[in-house]
Amino acid sequence: MSSDSLVCLKDFEKYAKEHLNRNSWGFFSAGAEGCQTLRDNEEAFRRLRLRPRFLRDVSVRDMSATVLGQRVDMPIGISPTANQGLASPQGEIGTAKAAAQFQTCMICSTYSNFTMEDIMNSSPDGLKWFQLYVRPDRETTAGLVRRAERAGYKALVLTVDLPIVGRRYPDLRHGFSMPPHLRVANLGNADLSQNKKDRNEALDYGMGGPDQSSDIALSWKDIAWLRSICSLPIILKGILTAEDARLAVQHGVDGILVSNHGGRQLDGVPATVQPSSRLCSCVITFAEKVMTQNNSRTP
Amino acid sequence: MSSDSLVCLKDFEKYAKEHLNRNSWGFFSAGAEGCQTLRDNEEAFRRLRLRPRFLRDVSVRDMSATVLGQRVDMPIGISPTANQGLASPQGEIGTAKAAAQFQTCMICSTYSNFTMEDIMNSSPDGLKWFQLYVRPDRETTAGLVRRAERAGYKALVLTVDLPIVGRRYPDLRHGFSMPPHLRVANLGNADLSQNKKDRNEALDYGMGGPDQSSDIALSWKDIAWLRSICSLPIILKGILTAEDARLAVQHGVDGILVSNHGGRQLDGVPATVQPSSRLCSCVITFAEKVMTQNNSRTP
Amino acid sequence: MSSDSLVCLKDFEKYAKEHLNRNSWGFFSAGAEGCQTLRDNEEAFRRLRLRPRFLRDVSVRDMSATVLGQRVDMPIGISPTANQGLASPQGEIGTAKAAAQFQTCMICSTYSNFTMEDIMNSSPDGLKWFQLYVRPDRETTAGLVRRAERAGYKALVLTVDLPIVGRRYPDLRHGFSMPPHLRVANLGNADLSQNKKDRNEALDYGMGGPDQSSDIALSWKDIAWLRSICSLPIILKGILTAEDARLAVQHGVDGILVSNHGGRQLDGVPATVQPSSRLCSCVITFAEKVMTQNNSRTP
Amino acid sequence: MSSDSLVCLKDFEKYAKEHLNRNSWGFFSAGAEGCQTLRDNEEAFRRLRLRPRFLRDVSVRDMSATVLGQRVDMPIGISPTANQGLASPQGEIGTAKAAAQFQTCMICSTYSNFTMEDIMNSSPDGLKWFQLYVRPDRETTAGLVRRAERAGYKALVLTVDLPIVGRRYPDLRHGFSMPPHLRVANLGNADLSQNKKDRNEALDYGMGGPDQSSDIALSWKDIAWLRSICSLPIILKGILTAEDARLAVQHGVDGILVSNHGGRQLDGVPATVQPSSRLCSCVITFAEKVMTQNNSRTP
Repeated sequence: MSSDSLVCLKDFEKYAKEHLNRNSWGFFSAGAEGCQTLRDNEEAFRRLRLRPRFLRDVSVRDMSATVLGQRVDMPIGISPTANQGLASPQGEIGTAKAAAQFQTCMICSTYSNFTMEDIMNSSPDGLKWFQLYVRPDRETTAGLVRRAERAGYKALVLTVDLPIVGRRYPDLRHGFSMPPHLRVANLGNADLSQNKKDRNEALDYGMGGPDQSSDIALSWKDIAWLRSICSLPIILKGILTAEDARLAVQHGVDGILVSNHGGRQLDGVPATVQPSSRLCSCVITFAEKVMTQNNSRTP
Repeated sequence: MSSDSLVCLKDFEKYAKEHLNRNSWGFFSAGAEGCQTLRDNEEAFRRLRLRPRFLRDVSVRDMSATVLGQRVDMPIGISPTANQGLASPQGEIGTAKAAAQFQTCMICSTYSNFTMEDIMNSSPDGLKWFQLYVRPDRETTAGLVRRAERAGYKALVLTVDLPIVGRRYPDLRHGFSMPPHLRVANLGNADLSQNKKDRNEALDYGMGGPDQSSDIALSWKDIAWLRSICSLPIILKGILTAEDARLAVQHGVDGILVSNHGGRQLDGVPATVQPSSRLCSCVITFAEKVMTQNNSRTP
Repeated sequence: MSSDSLVCLKDFEKYAKEHLNRNSWGFFSAGAEGCQTLRDNEEAFRRLRLRPRFLRDVSVRDMSATVLGQRVDMPIGISPTANQGLASPQGEIGTAKAAAQFQTCMICSTYSNFTMEDIMNSSPDGLKWFQLYVRPDRETTAGLVRRAERAGYKALVLTVDLPIVGRRYPDLRHGFSMPPHLRVANLGNADLSQNKKDRNEALDYGMGGPDQSSDIALSWKDIAWLRSICSLPIILKGILTAEDARLAVQHGVDGILVSNHGGRQLDGVPATVQPSSRLCSCVITFAEKVMTQNNSRTP
Repeated sequence: MSSDSLVCLKDFEKYAKEHLNRNSWGFFSAGAEGCQTLRDNEEAFRRLRLRPRFLRDVSVRDMSATVLGQRVDMPIGISPTANQGLASPQGEIGTAKAAAQFQTCMICSTYSNFTMEDIMNSSPDGLKWFQLYVRPDRETTAGLVRRAERAGYKALVLTVDLPIVGRRYPDLRHGFSMPPHLRVANLGNADLSQNKKDRNEALDYGMGGPDQSSDIALSWKDIAWLRSICSLPIILKGILTAEDARLAVQHGVDGILVSNHGGRQLDGVPATVQPSSRLCSCVITFAEKVMTQNNSRTP
């Protein structure tokens, strides 16, 4: 398969499986536990049905949208993925340049292999948000947030669905070993390099400590703390229930990303593209409320 | 597999796959994108259930029907397909003779390999409609319409679901090359033969230009223009929503063909044989309205 | 696979496929057209769910039932199948002996390879009904009915779902050839043996004539004619709609067999074991009506 | 596959299939009849969906529960399985030690290969219940009950879904042979060892006699008899309908286990994890009633 014949996402997936080494492919392809949710994510997509309308003059087409005040050429962006250096030497910088070229939003992971500043400098015109894992050490977290704001990221995307790292059976069976040349660039990892096991755990998920947990004590009150240390819009990534969507509104966040972490965190949750009707109506209500807030903020 | 054992459609499909060259088979078998709709079209058919009634004297059977004032022996006709010369040297003429023999309707494609006049002359007794792609150059379009009327076609079938040619992944991967002996007979293609790429695009879908689009600006107001240049009944092919069916009634067309273009245009739309219940009731209402109109026209 | 390990119906099917010649296996296994209904019949069975009750003293168990006044040891009988001589030299006589041993009802086909009299004599104690195909020649039909009544058959099962023989694609592809030693015993077939094609058609489905049809003109009024020439209860086999079940009640028949002919007649009808809820309620109403009639007949 | 890479239940199943001999694997893996329910049990599990809530401080987690007055570390216990000696020389003693280590409940089968006293002594701190098959000889049954109470078992789990042993097709095809070194320890089996066929039947299901039945006459009135000879809570295992759940409440039992015997008894019943909504509401009502009773018993 040559790269010339890559015409759809499935082709890229097949190409990656053929060209990445087993360690890297394992990292990107693993789903949580029995991978039911990983499969459901794709199947739910296939069940979506379009209702095309015809006999409209479509000689001029525009898919641009405004997201939290920023214009994008299409309402499709790039979710955060850790360790993109495993897929290509260009890592997150390659992705950022592509996103900028297509004028859409890229969300950069806390656990990127390039620093958030290097990524931003590679494509300063592209809209970028920063995905945040809250570290046990709050000062480290605050440092990340301040750097993101200073570097020009336009929103903070707080991942809420990782109190504990998902049990990915392939990882548990075969292990995962971070290549020595890759870094958790935003955190620095001089201390981690001493101990191979610690280093892999940290690099794998950007976390240290024996229980692989970082955000285990994260709770709604931390939203207020985040709000107090930064002026960026705050988005919660990983909300899966109507109840949590309502709490998000009550705690004054600026948006939510309905997501199941690509089926990599907790197996058995609903497909990202097929939330419950209760969650759907919450999302709509939320959008209306946020719009009203935004309007009232812009007098 | 010999042609003696062809007892159902699936057998013909298998036979075609075995006997056509890869280029021709690729043209006829390709579906849009991931082919979800191509598969759905067949699966929805399999889910239909018959409710047979018994103990009726069926020694005399009659499946004939009247369509737009014309009698057919059975309420099953032949949808338009381009480039039938790829399947057989007899091309559209072979199909037209078969349709005439079974006394049913054939819809001839704008992009046939024989001219509409040659097809009509081959079987003048058979009921034929002409499928129309509106060309960017309206005079060319008007010429096609006038020729169809003059040649004896009994209705104009305007395809509405092709503002842009569907992305057929197999075509994108392997390309498609029109054999040199085949023509877009209704349009003439002397000029196209100079440039291989242009020629293939034009022959493939009967269209020129870099974006492979012809009807991109087609809209409801063009129905009135068509009406003004011809007296044939106008049928819209490709309607998939109740909303568009209602608009069709309001714009005074004489019929619609619910169709997803054999799953070749936009992947993810409903199966042709399983429209929404809202569309079904529109179709019934439409039929009643058309019948009322026809009755009032025949005093 | 030895006959010792045959513990369920699927095992017998597998055994038959291995031990019958292709011609015989083809006859018994063929379904109509694409075999959707053949598959549905099995799948619908698998979807049935039992609701077992416990802590009942089941040391004495009795599954016996009374059907049209006759006692059977279990409410499961044997539907009519033609040409059982294809499966075993004992043919219908073997089946009849087994049915008698288990004290349940066997329905003997018009197109058996032994005469109805020979079958009855082989196991005179076993309850037997006679399945009737109405022949174009009514005198032949009347002869069959009179013989069945005289031989001791307790009911007449009129097949209503065969105005035309189902299009079984395997038969159409490979043909079916009746072995020379087998007869349509109830009809005699001296005349058929002259012409191989005629003979096969006749033996295959017990019918002559070019269109393989016998009951093509059969209708509700023929029920009254049947009633006039015999005193046996009349059962209609093949009813698939609530409407026809209601007509059956109105025409005074004594029972119906909801059946799709094992998926061999018309592909696409509902699974036998999963009739519509409307048909189910008709069947219950029917049963109540028949019971009331029977009670009023026994003063 | 090494035991190091066993990360989920499916891995253990695969490991067992590879490492057990065919006889032992056959015993544990067999489902009733066509194994529809065996498959449904797993598929219904896969259809369950979780609704995770986030942004809760989960640094302290507690899954402990109180069951019939006893504390367990998690609300997941071990259902009774006969003949665990087939899987490991440690048999039920190995399982009991594991259950005690994880501080959860083990239910010991009447047909264990170690005596109930040996199992209890191996891990006296672990919560254990005793599963009871009522024997035709009531004095033997009473002896089992008295021994269980004396040994320290905290509840009696009466299996109600085995009036007759399920027809497991694999067993019927290949047979099952109890290894000579294993005993039905709770019953003693000196007399059984004389006759190989009897011995196998007895050891297989812990029952003697030609019809493999023991509880065939078991009925609701036996609950009162059980109550009269022991003071332990009584739980009914195998209830599958709302009607039987209601009867259980009326007969004063202390709990029910909704179960289809792992799909090994009657094929075609609902999946254990997917009972009807009527049964679900009964179970809830039941739980409330039992709680009320318990409260009124503890003044």
